[in-house]
Amino acid sequence: MHKKLPTRAENFSEWYNEIIKRAELAENAAVRGCMTIRPYGFAIWEKMQAILDKAFKATGHENAYFPIFIPKSYLNREAAHVEGFAKECAVVTHYRLKATEDGQQVVVDPSAKLEEELIVRPTSETIIWNSYKNWIQSYRDLPLLINQWCNVVRWEMRTRLFLRTAEFLWQEGHTAHATQAEAEQEALQMLNIYADFGKDYLAIPFLKGIKTEHERFAGAEETYTIEALMQDGKALQAGTSHFLGQRFAKAFEVTFTNQAGQLDYVWGTSWGLTTRLIGALVMTHSDDKGLVLPPRVAPIQIVIIPIYRTQEEKEAIQQQAQHIQQQLIAHNISAKLDGRDEHKPGWKFAEYELKGVPIRMAIGPNDLANNTVELTRRDTSEKTTVPTDNIIVVVKSMLDSIHDNLYQRAYEFREQNTYQVNSYEEFKTAISQKRGFILAHWDGTKETERQIHAETKATIRCIPLEVNTEPGVCIYTGKPSKQRVVFGQAY
Amino acid sequence: MHKKLPTRAENFSEWYNEIIKRAELAENAAVRGCMTIRPYGFAIWEKMQAILDKAFKATGHENAYFPIFIPKSYLNREAAHVEGFAKECAVVTHYRLKATEDGQQVVVDPSAKLEEELIVRPTSETIIWNSYKNWIQSYRDLPLLINQWCNVVRWEMRTRLFLRTAEFLWQEGHTAHATQAEAEQEALQMLNIYADFGKDYLAIPFLKGIKTEHERFAGAEETYTIEALMQDGKALQAGTSHFLGQRFAKAFEVTFTNQAGQLDYVWGTSWGLTTRLIGALVMTHSDDKGLVLPPRVAPIQIVIIPIYRTQEEKEAIQQQAQHIQQQLIAHNISAKLDGRDEHKPGWKFAEYELKGVPIRMAIGPNDLANNTVELTRRDTSEKTTVPTDNIIVVVKSMLDSIHDNLYQRAYEFREQNTYQVNSYEEFKTAISQKRGFILAHWDGTKETERQIHAETKATIRCIPLEVNTEPGVCIYTGKPSKQRVVFGQAY
Repeated sequence: MHKKLPTRAENFSEWYNEIIKRAELAENAAVRGCMTIRPYGFAIWEKMQAILDKAFKATGHENAYFPIFIPKSYLNREAAHVEGFAKECAVVTHYRLKATEDGQQVVVDPSAKLEEELIVRPTSETIIWNSYKNWIQSYRDLPLLINQWCNVVRWEMRTRLFLRTAEFLWQEGHTAHATQAEAEQEALQMLNIYADFGKDYLAIPFLKGIKTEHERFAGAEETYTIEALMQDGKALQAGTSHFLGQRFAKAFEVTFTNQAGQLDYVWGTSWGLTTRLIGALVMTHSDDKGLVLPPRVAPIQIVIIPIYRTQEEKEAIQQQAQHIQQQLIAHNISAKLDGRDEHKPGWKFAEYELKGVPIRMAIGPNDLANNTVELTRRDTSEKTTVPTDNIIVVVKSMLDSIHDNLYQRAYEFREQNTYQVNSYEEFKTAISQKRGFILAHWDGTKETERQIHAETKATIRCIPLEVNTEPGVCIYTGKPSKQRVVFGQAY
Repeated sequence: MHKKLPTRAENFSEWYNEIIKRAELAENAAVRGCMTIRPYGFAIWEKMQAILDKAFKATGHENAYFPIFIPKSYLNREAAHVEGFAKECAVVTHYRLKATEDGQQVVVDPSAKLEEELIVRPTSETIIWNSYKNWIQSYRDLPLLINQWCNVVRWEMRTRLFLRTAEFLWQEGHTAHATQAEAEQEALQMLNIYADFGKDYLAIPFLKGIKTEHERFAGAEETYTIEALMQDGKALQAGTSHFLGQRFAKAFEVTFTNQAGQLDYVWGTSWGLTTRLIGALVMTHSDDKGLVLPPRVAPIQIVIIPIYRTQEEKEAIQQQAQHIQQQLIAHNISAKLDGRDEHKPGWKFAEYELKGVPIRMAIGPNDLANNTVELTRRDTSEKTTVPTDNIIVVVKSMLDSIHDNLYQRAYEFREQNTYQVNSYEEFKTAISQKRGFILAHWDGTKETERQIHAETKATIRCIPLEVNTEPGVCIYTGKPSKQRVVFGQAY
């Protein structure tokens, strides 16, 4: 049978690792810090990709593909950018191996040294803006709205499956615009697409905000962020959208002739979401029985488990199960039938609970006789016996209801774990005892931000958008503050 | 206006390069040997991916993602494999850069040297079979049917956009089976899926065959291939499917308990198609006016161009054009409306001809009055004026007809350029004057194969499947031969 999971209360970190492993989402690879995304985990990513890709295309973006290698000198063209990425990048120095003299080993061939080292892309602003230089001449070439789905590498020292790995998958949008206003609008538009995606598909309430200068993307003039609160009270940066100003245009000499016939630098944005979102899903919704997947990104939305004793029962029930499965699939509901004989129904119940399948449908001899099925919701464990006539409508509405419930639960958790504090003492108590999102006044200086971080491990997650701004005084220095910012202890 | 393309007869190679460039499919990147796939080229790849991915899933395969880095020692575990790939791989040796003392440059940080170098994957058999070791214990875990869409790197010396680049995109299937027969069947099944994809979507007739030992994949026991004939008479290997025997299972100790309770090594296959297919498309169908895209992978299947003189005409025609575009899109036909004022219709005609859009729809004042449109086929330049009532049916059937015509044309070209020769003299004349596929008897030895290649540049493209095997004597040595093989000069 299934071994019991560690509980969240016992050891949140172990609980997370075990869910990832036992639900077969991913595993650590042989290469330090890299992960293998297993089929079940990858299927979640594919669902996310399909939804996002559609949203990107609906807003006029096209996909393209740029090289994985970036010449070392390119990184260096934008001062903040190289500062941010040089310390953690994989460097290709040679292009050939050769056999040792005894023929037993292969070693790097010293004669195949590259003239200029290549960096495995940590992000693609530099190589992309270098192309944009040739693609953009006039305002008629703008806006240029491009997205890329790919792998990137950042040589992180402490890694964690999905949350922080040396290689991860993501999408990176890179757009070029004729005006500052248009670029700023684009950066905000993408932030909103991300936040809506969270609400409508991941059932995660994302807090939208602006990063402080200290937490800003290396090379951006403004970084917008979506922040989520995990069940252990820690914050997770789930995606970012950057207004780049004219920085990369200036670094790569990307100019255009505007409508007035004048030459100007192009305005840019970039924005990205990564496989980290799978980690966010796990830590937002799952429980002590295992993974809980929001229905709209679940690879299997409903699993059908036949229950029988005799061969005769088996055949009749399998037939009914197949019939229902086909109906569900015809209505775009991802339905799996597990009719394997080598496992008992109880084992299967535990297995799909662990794997977070939103609905379990059991069909036994009584169900067959009564033309019913038993549905069990993964989120609430609630069981209902329903007639099969109307099964599509019932399942669809249950999937929606599970989505809504997961969102509501996560939203309430966040509300309950968001605190306003008005003194540094209160702040320290809150962050050490409860974590969560802590709304506090800050004087706007890097120095205060750093001091608070050094003393409490808390960082400013964001300066929230969409809140009433009421002025006050900084909890640390007593200096004036324009609005509360959100502190948290981050992953 | 549009500059004239070089013709195929003048300079096939220049013609190819210019089409890729002017149709904005791809371009050489700043990194030697790498390419940037531009949105129009990438949209073709996305269409291919969607079709293939569906076919893979319909045959039970799931997608997953394995790390881009392979520890150097892994390559070395399978003797033929390392021999095949060591000479052309990108090697990561360090994981950090640092600023020079003057702060002006970044250099590799010598203190951040990896203990073991990492290879950027040229193909993933090694890292994947290393995972399979942990995933497979019993026959119940088999077959394991996994596919990966990703980028790979092979440090090719002579590169050519799409055909041979240092980095390219592909899918690589890696399957594990309990029996030899099942693995062989899988390798053949995937070959057939590839060939059907060629016929049904790319309008390319692929010749199916087996590679000689010399041309076999490094680590395979049998390599199946699909070979295409380009318009210049050169052959292009378009995809391969490998029966790996138990080689990688033995190299990575992947065993399983079979139904009889005995421990055995697992049987494997791998198979891949790459962005090279875009090059194959161009060189198979395009003409001296530009790209010709087969409709089922064309990003734009029909372009609508309004023709007007007055503002009044413009408004009425644009409205009609939008109405028709919406109808087409509602029927899953990818329709673009180019209503831009800054370009004349003649310019647009040339532009979409260059870009290979299968059908052009022009709507002028007379068309509006008569409720007609003028359709022009890209493949034949044939014009027809048709009523708008029935436009969906007409366009759909024209797209099918274009597909069929392109396939037929390519098939006939191949037939006309396939020669049977019975002596080495005939062979040399054919290969030097006409190239094409040359069917000749061969004695089955590596030595003869090498000699013929050295003297004529011709390689054995494949030992064809699905032909009558009639014995004969080798054109080079006069020794007995079981069947004719296909020679060609390859890209």
